[in-house]
Amino acid sequence: MSRTVYLDGQYLPEAEAKVSIFDRGFVMADGVYEVTSVLDGKLLDFAGHMRRLTRSLNELGMDNPLSEQDYLDAHRKLLELNGITDGLVYLQVTRGNAGDRDFAFPPEGTPQTVVMFTQAKPGLAENPQAQTGLRVISAPDLRWHRRDIKTVQLLYPSLLKMEAKARGADDAWLVEDGFVTEGTSNNTYIVKDGTLITRDLSNDILHGITRTALLRLASEAQIKVEERPFTLAEAQAADEALITSASAFVLPVVEIDGAQVGNGQPGPIATRLREIYLEESRKTAI
Amino acid sequence: MSRTVYLDGQYLPEAEAKVSIFDRGFVMADGVYEVTSVLDGKLLDFAGHMRRLTRSLNELGMDNPLSEQDYLDAHRKLLELNGITDGLVYLQVTRGNAGDRDFAFPPEGTPQTVVMFTQAKPGLAENPQAQTGLRVISAPDLRWHRRDIKTVQLLYPSLLKMEAKARGADDAWLVEDGFVTEGTSNNTYIVKDGTLITRDLSNDILHGITRTALLRLASEAQIKVEERPFTLAEAQAADEALITSASAFVLPVVEIDGAQVGNGQPGPIATRLREIYLEESRKTAI
Repeated sequence: MSRTVYLDGQYLPEAEAKVSIFDRGFVMADGVYEVTSVLDGKLLDFAGHMRRLTRSLNELGMDNPLSEQDYLDAHRKLLELNGITDGLVYLQVTRGNAGDRDFAFPPEGTPQTVVMFTQAKPGLAENPQAQTGLRVISAPDLRWHRRDIKTVQLLYPSLLKMEAKARGADDAWLVEDGFVTEGTSNNTYIVKDGTLITRDLSNDILHGITRTALLRLASEAQIKVEERPFTLAEAQAADEALITSASAFVLPVVEIDGAQVGNGQPGPIATRLREIYLEESRKTAI
Repeated sequence: MSRTVYLDGQYLPEAEAKVSIFDRGFVMADGVYEVTSVLDGKLLDFAGHMRRLTRSLNELGMDNPLSEQDYLDAHRKLLELNGITDGLVYLQVTRGNAGDRDFAFPPEGTPQTVVMFTQAKPGLAENPQAQTGLRVISAPDLRWHRRDIKTVQLLYPSLLKMEAKARGADDAWLVEDGFVTEGTSNNTYIVKDGTLITRDLSNDILHGITRTALLRLASEAQIKVEERPFTLAEAQAADEALITSASAFVLPVVEIDGAQVGNGQPGPIATRLREIYLEESRKTAI
């Protein structure tokens, strides 16, 4: 069945949703995005995604073309039109189409492009990888240095996910100057002696919405949290490893570059944090 | 007058040239491009651009969807349809549209997207900046680390060109680990004691088609060439500075971060190389 998607105020059959070849998103990767998960027909941490969207746009000198209420209405309408119970809503905003290609920004008043679409993911919260854990490889972090801005410059993460797959792994962790920055599309954590360790916020990593929630929930659950960089060797020698993202929630990592983490099984803290996160997210979903 | 552009085998009015919102170029910056200059209705160093296009595609694991002859025919047809004497032809190839967004590559056999369009630039070779010279600012090079692949991940260069403009300059030179890598969309050179110095090829910089031609022409003109990185301070203290790109050809740089280069006027070697380059390019244009 064809999806209905949102494009610049219109709800269209997905095959008709097209943007100009001059759109800044197409010729210059001049766009940002958000992905909001949906469980039981409700949006998880929508306000968090809206805050980050506004921040990403601001950092690039773009206005936010719609109000939070407009985005919420559109998200909900798309969920309804497409009968989504579990899944996600993807949202992308670009600097629009100036009618030609130029490094210079389009003239003031050029409408930005706004795209939203759903993906149905039945059983999103029952990911079997929560039981098996992820196996990851490492790779040098070659991405641009404003990873705090959620741009569509996703070529390298895409290449790495393909490389991980080709090497029999599930994903890749990125390493820069000897320290893990994050995963290809997720924040990374280790657990050592009961302490949850994750890299501190900077321009080097995405400011994960799920990361913020997880650190709060961990503290509330009396789990000690340390925000600092860690090395790959430290991760391999940790008791547990895990990742968070808006669509994967919390997932254990059981192998890093072929080295087993802990006993090679999902650890108790990762498992508990996943449960807490899902329970809390369902409660606060809108 | 509306341009006619090329999209996936069709010649269309520019307003009708649209790609899916799921195109990998739009959602993941998964595309590469080339820009070929046109003087007197002829294409400059077309074979060089074709070689680099194939290399960029190969580095990203993409096939080249068209033959060199197909590209040439399309370039020429666009020039004719749009009455271009001086200008350029832009060409972009993406990994195509898999009908949804996924970090994983589209299934084997998914058609790639091919876009070509012209820009008329009357008097392209008579750029007044050849007489005045460019003033540039410096900025940290925050781009991803495969700059040898000509991808559409151009957000940072675009931001920097806007910043340069806002600060009363023409462009920006990028600096990494203390050394100049290149300009936002051009290769950078200095001249000291008659020697033309430019950074050696690596993944750190674009392998400029014009750069290759210039180094050959400089050698033929008995100008000593040194390929090595140089610092910003060295550039500011040089006798001359210059840039090359496919659409700017060769342009002198007369000011770097407010410091005058040489006597603050376009230098003799930059000026001579521009003349030689234009003369040779016109001779070999097809």
